[in-house]
Amino acid sequence: MAPKVSGGRSEETDPRPRVVVVGGGFGGLAAARALARSPVRLTVVDRCNHHLFQPLLYQVATAGLSPADIAAPIRHILSRQANATVLLDSVTAVDTRRREVVLGDRRIPYDYLVLATGARHHYFGHEWERAAPGLKTIEDATEIRARVLLAFERAENAADAAARERLLNIVIVGGGPTGVEMAGALAELAKRALADDFRNIDPRAARIVLLEAGPRILAAFPEQLSAYAARALARLGVDVRTGASVEEVDAEGVVAAGRRIPTQTVIWAAGVRASPAGAWLGAATDEHGRVEVAGDLGVAGIPNVFVIGDAARLHDADGRPLPGVAAVAAQQGAHAGRHIDALVRGRPPPGPFRYRDVGNWATIGRSSAVVDFGPVRLTGLLAWLLWGAAHIFLLIGFRNKIAVMLEWLWSYLTFKRGMRLITGHRE
Amino acid sequence: MAPKVSGGRSEETDPRPRVVVVGGGFGGLAAARALARSPVRLTVVDRCNHHLFQPLLYQVATAGLSPADIAAPIRHILSRQANATVLLDSVTAVDTRRREVVLGDRRIPYDYLVLATGARHHYFGHEWERAAPGLKTIEDATEIRARVLLAFERAENAADAAARERLLNIVIVGGGPTGVEMAGALAELAKRALADDFRNIDPRAARIVLLEAGPRILAAFPEQLSAYAARALARLGVDVRTGASVEEVDAEGVVAAGRRIPTQTVIWAAGVRASPAGAWLGAATDEHGRVEVAGDLGVAGIPNVFVIGDAARLHDADGRPLPGVAAVAAQQGAHAGRHIDALVRGRPPPGPFRYRDVGNWATIGRSSAVVDFGPVRLTGLLAWLLWGAAHIFLLIGFRNKIAVMLEWLWSYLTFKRGMRLITGHRE
Repeated sequence: MAPKVSGGRSEETDPRPRVVVVGGGFGGLAAARALARSPVRLTVVDRCNHHLFQPLLYQVATAGLSPADIAAPIRHILSRQANATVLLDSVTAVDTRRREVVLGDRRIPYDYLVLATGARHHYFGHEWERAAPGLKTIEDATEIRARVLLAFERAENAADAAARERLLNIVIVGGGPTGVEMAGALAELAKRALADDFRNIDPRAARIVLLEAGPRILAAFPEQLSAYAARALARLGVDVRTGASVEEVDAEGVVAAGRRIPTQTVIWAAGVRASPAGAWLGAATDEHGRVEVAGDLGVAGIPNVFVIGDAARLHDADGRPLPGVAAVAAQQGAHAGRHIDALVRGRPPPGPFRYRDVGNWATIGRSSAVVDFGPVRLTGLLAWLLWGAAHIFLLIGFRNKIAVMLEWLWSYLTFKRGMRLITGHRE
Repeated sequence: MAPKVSGGRSEETDPRPRVVVVGGGFGGLAAARALARSPVRLTVVDRCNHHLFQPLLYQVATAGLSPADIAAPIRHILSRQANATVLLDSVTAVDTRRREVVLGDRRIPYDYLVLATGARHHYFGHEWERAAPGLKTIEDATEIRARVLLAFERAENAADAAARERLLNIVIVGGGPTGVEMAGALAELAKRALADDFRNIDPRAARIVLLEAGPRILAAFPEQLSAYAARALARLGVDVRTGASVEEVDAEGVVAAGRRIPTQTVIWAAGVRASPAGAWLGAATDEHGRVEVAGDLGVAGIPNVFVIGDAARLHDADGRPLPGVAAVAAQQGAHAGRHIDALVRGRPPPGPFRYRDVGNWATIGRSSAVVDFGPVRLTGLLAWLLWGAAHIFLLIGFRNKIAVMLEWLWSYLTFKRGMRLITGHRE
């Protein structure tokens, strides 16, 4: 079968400029969609076949949702966008001189390039990844789910009280939104969903420890909301320790602020580092590996290349760097797409990117969340309902919206978690 | 925290006999449930934490269902059964002299033992497992799902027509119910769910080949139903080849009946071999590794040990061996449980096991199935609706029943598959 030729033009004579978007996350998808009606040949490259709704990934890790509930194939999302081709492949370099994206032994030319490659967790130079996995991919989430559930299984089988105690300690490093959400969800898992299923241990005796190096959790939120979150976590039985910088992580436990916590289950939510977009471009990066971008999201000295989302560093009007959240990535993706569309059509490009703040959100547990809209601050049930509605609205695909809504309803009514599977080939 | 002691008795003085059930599949669970009111200390051991509804596993492999939709934690299923303890562990041997089950360096004593350890796929001495995975566990299913979806992705990226053709060939070895169901579901995946999502290939051009060594598919069914199934598969575009014994499987393809089919995606549904229960007991086994059991499901010369389900070989009244299906395992498990209950209470045990035939079932695709109740034979829409209703009814757990029903409804209305994820760390 000969390859289909999009739009009836052959590859060689197609006069439309080529746009390559690397990454199918919030930023890359928004860029692709903003180019839906542009006279361009668009290629979206990702090494995963699916877009992942990362804000709910912690619920996969805590057995509340299935991976497929928060993921959708990128090529399916873009299947009706006639100018878009999706490639499952890994970018290994960018040749800015020849304007080509390098995928191993293969190259794709570009006229415009959008790098939306995100970030991975980062251990500040330590070798802690094996002992303390982070939460960025579906594989990360099912691995953490398996470790947490296995800890309870091993405690049930354990011969002595010291081993049981060590196995029932779960430590989360990092008191940002991900750490807070993980801690709350793990506490509810242990105290409610698992409570009646064991004979030799009481899962309610599990100790969930949240370590934060700074003086308070949710440092990006107003102090009043941080304090609310700390109280709400304490009510769930979470042991919140601030000013507790992690000094060591090994197979036997964690040392923080000079004290050792014996545990075999550590979850890393403390730091991320941008993907190697900066290295590909040979561009200036900040200490988190993010590429310094201009107001048009372009990179100084490298024409027609835009970097967005967690891979980019840009300041807001007040000089503060924009946070690494989905809303920034999505808005920047749309902006980069509109910018390229204008260039292609010979129209004036939009002005510099400005982030429309959609607030800071974090959920703690059942009927408990914090939302910071600047002047308006919400906590408790109202914040939680708003958080839920917003996340259902933002999920991609009708099926996933319905599936997540029904899972939440079922969990709310029964206190159960439906996805308590230990999977993956284990030693 | 000291271990809880069930029923207020301490371990040493508890006079109740110990029953150990190895395996949490259909057989093991039925045995455990039949002992719910028995004055015994029951331990269920499985190396997985979940019971798996294997009859629908092919739908996980073909992106129609999520793993958690057809699995539930064994300890949650048995959480209200006060006399039951569930252990996640691997049995390595059985010491029939000392009446102990060996779990690595640990031993559990038993007064009565039920081995419900099932079967794994079997390659008749060939080294074909890497190239042709079978379908027994969740990991098997997500691996097959990844391979099938990756084949389409690689075809989309392929440089030449020969590579594309090889990648778009999918071969299923074995024309029993699993092979037929996989072939039908893969054809529908390629021709419907994936149809519009690619640019360089047409997924409808994929060739699904079903190889059967014998003269007809569904050999356990009446000829009329085999013929119906073959016609229904042909209508879906499946290339059904009977009398096609597989001679070679390698990374480049399959050789069957002297002809090579170039492919990188082979699925094994041709043979199973019983788990090592026979070796553990030192008991007589048949050519499939199944332990020969008596009418009470006991093993000659080994008192108080029962073997059930796919691990056992028993003949029906007509001298034919009972098939390796869920219904046989479940009925045998219940029988073994009742038998042990009678022995424990000093009552007369039930008569020898008799299988109540619940029919032979296989679904082919949308609105198409075959059901053989002996005198009554059904095909088409009626058989398909009956098949669906029966499987929903048999699924364990309210959540899973509702989830599967909704997924089926959504797929029926949209022709889509919601679980098109490529996961697992790949090279």
